Amino acid sequence: MMDIPDGSLFGLANLPYGVFSTPGSAPRVGVRVGDSVVDLAAALGEEVFAQPTLNAFMAQGHDRWVRVRQQITELVSGDVPDGAVHPVAEVRMHLPVEVADYVDFYASEHHATNLGRLFRPDSEPLMPNWKHLPVGYHGRAGTVVVSGTDVVRPSGQRRAPGEDAPTFGPCRRLDVEAELGFVVGTGSELGTAVPIAEFATRVFGAVLVNDWSARDIQAWEYVPLGPFLGKSFATSVSPWVVPLLALEQARVATPAQIPEPLPYLKEPEPWGLDIDLAVSWNGHEVSRPPYREMYWSPAQMLAHLTVNGAASRTGDLYASGTVSGPEKHQRGAFIELTWGGAQPVRIGGQERTFLEDGDEVTITATAPGANGTRIGFGEVTGRVLPAS
Amino acid sequence: MMDIPDGSLFGLANLPYGVFSTPGSAPRVGVRVGDSVVDLAAALGEEVFAQPTLNAFMAQGHDRWVRVRQQITELVSGDVPDGAVHPVAEVRMHLPVEVADYVDFYASEHHATNLGRLFRPDSEPLMPNWKHLPVGYHGRAGTVVVSGTDVVRPSGQRRAPGEDAPTFGPCRRLDVEAELGFVVGTGSELGTAVPIAEFATRVFGAVLVNDWSARDIQAWEYVPLGPFLGKSFATSVSPWVVPLLALEQARVATPAQIPEPLPYLKEPEPWGLDIDLAVSWNGHEVSRPPYREMYWSPAQMLAHLTVNGAASRTGDLYASGTVSGPEKHQRGAFIELTWGGAQPVRIGGQERTFLEDGDEVTITATAPGANGTRIGFGEVTGRVLPAS
Repeated sequence: MMDIPDGSLFGLANLPYGVFSTPGSAPRVGVRVGDSVVDLAAALGEEVFAQPTLNAFMAQGHDRWVRVRQQITELVSGDVPDGAVHPVAEVRMHLPVEVADYVDFYASEHHATNLGRLFRPDSEPLMPNWKHLPVGYHGRAGTVVVSGTDVVRPSGQRRAPGEDAPTFGPCRRLDVEAELGFVVGTGSELGTAVPIAEFATRVFGAVLVNDWSARDIQAWEYVPLGPFLGKSFATSVSPWVVPLLALEQARVATPAQIPEPLPYLKEPEPWGLDIDLAVSWNGHEVSRPPYREMYWSPAQMLAHLTVNGAASRTGDLYASGTVSGPEKHQRGAFIELTWGGAQPVRIGGQERTFLEDGDEVTITATAPGANGTRIGFGEVTGRVLPAS
Repeated sequence: MMDIPDGSLFGLANLPYGVFSTPGSAPRVGVRVGDSVVDLAAALGEEVFAQPTLNAFMAQGHDRWVRVRQQITELVSGDVPDGAVHPVAEVRMHLPVEVADYVDFYASEHHATNLGRLFRPDSEPLMPNWKHLPVGYHGRAGTVVVSGTDVVRPSGQRRAPGEDAPTFGPCRRLDVEAELGFVVGTGSELGTAVPIAEFATRVFGAVLVNDWSARDIQAWEYVPLGPFLGKSFATSVSPWVVPLLALEQARVATPAQIPEPLPYLKEPEPWGLDIDLAVSWNGHEVSRPPYREMYWSPAQMLAHLTVNGAASRTGDLYASGTVSGPEKHQRGAFIELTWGGAQPVRIGGQERTFLEDGDEVTITATAPGANGTRIGFGEVTGRVLPAS
């Protein structure tokens, strides 16, 4: 039996997958157990784990995910070969998934309402479509990076209030968005919608996402075709993919959905998730966004994403959009937390509105696991470097 | 010397690359010469051409593209081994590129103005940002398909005029957008902008694009985050990638850009392109969009796309947005051509506004080539199947 510290967020109820390397070795698939990483290629001797991403394993499908989870449970309950276990502090983590398409939703009513008020103060904050469908857009798959990757402050066009013309320069309103991301394990064919009931067999697991956002660039560019360079410079994800199989105890109903969703969005069983996020700014916790407050569920997001017949692929990543609750200390983006910069937050002895060079943001999360335990997501962290 | 019909659009001035297969053989790289395809894997004996996409070859970089083009010119001017030549009518063409990220711009002033009038009749048609930057958004890379792929009519939410709530069903306003697409050959690192002068060494070539559009789905969903399911069901590309090296004679200045673009968007030399597109609906030509009218050049698009430090990758595809000229018969989308359906077009004995099941749309294009010739793009064609 492997040594798992009491109260570990990475006990047998969790068993998240990641891609790691040790000095001089190639990246390969591992599973986190307590403070250790079990090398699945070494422990199970299968080629599918000797890969630099989870994609090949994910593509094997849901039945296989169930069997391997059982195998791992048996393995770590017995004797794991010595060479197959590494302290988590001694490995380097890599981007766990080769991202195919990346989509970002906007599924928190509180976040969408707050952003609507801030970006369009003279209109209704929620658009007429918002309660009928999970609003989303495609982001840049090629700039999804693993936790720990530095984020260079983006430059671009932004127009200051009262000015007619934009100027070019480093972003002045650099922000974060604390989100949950879902990784598609088995895709679907072009011309075929994924029924909402297939969510649990097609989605492999979940990660934490920091959707870094340049608010001044975004505000200038986003009409009429949506966010583009204000988002595409970097999206960070946590290195450990928590299997959907580990989130059974976290399932809850979503908030009441009124008006009733169209049939393709009706859930046969609930896929709201009772996950507690926490956002730290330079080591000080500034927010605790509750995922259970999200209006649209991840099953509804996948059904919507494919209802037009769009194909999905192994490695598709779709994120929830900022997780914000009804209370001020539950807001998952700093533009909301500081109300557009008008209400600075104090961290340690300093005041902050948007991110300064050298700032570091870390998002963590926990959820109820099997047998009364709690399970953890690996953190997603990143530091801001000055514009180049 | 290979036989090339007089006036062929695929003479020595063109030499576009594609991926083809013959019955029982694996897809591999070929070059089109007249009405033939030369199997580059067989003729040049290099592994990089025995691949199902152009990506490996494109990643070798600009110097290599120049050398191989020279090699092919010499090869087809001499004796090509018999087994390496196939009639184009006897091969099957595949998607030439493994698409990394897909971006769609909106670079025709005429198109953006027309769409603004149709989608937002009570506002200024062009947004304040339009003349300052090439507006664009990310699309779905996983649903880029090769010419000839049938397009299933998408279903989704759409709200009829005067109704409060949306209904679900097959798209009623299915449209096309005739565009040019640019394929990135060598990418750029995260945190680094691509200077505008590097366009010609980083972009490998161009294809024709049909950005199929479900206007009713798009109109309902697109605020505030942009087009999503109204576009993501299919984007068709022509099978032959015309090398940028073949487009030297097509280069022209863009229309005057006022106000003057910011420095990062200033072209050291012009990259407007004098390419004539033609759109046929069920075999009847309905439009001749002129690419030379496009406000933003493809060099400006790439510089903008990366100015925030977004990485680019081999296989990135970015499209121009609908090519529309100032005249009615130069409009590259049917919503413009029929003014939102109010002015049907006659094709043969029939009237059309939007696409009906069974309709077929084909886009072709030609451009000036070396030595007074003209060069052709392979066509992009697709037929509409009923909603499933």
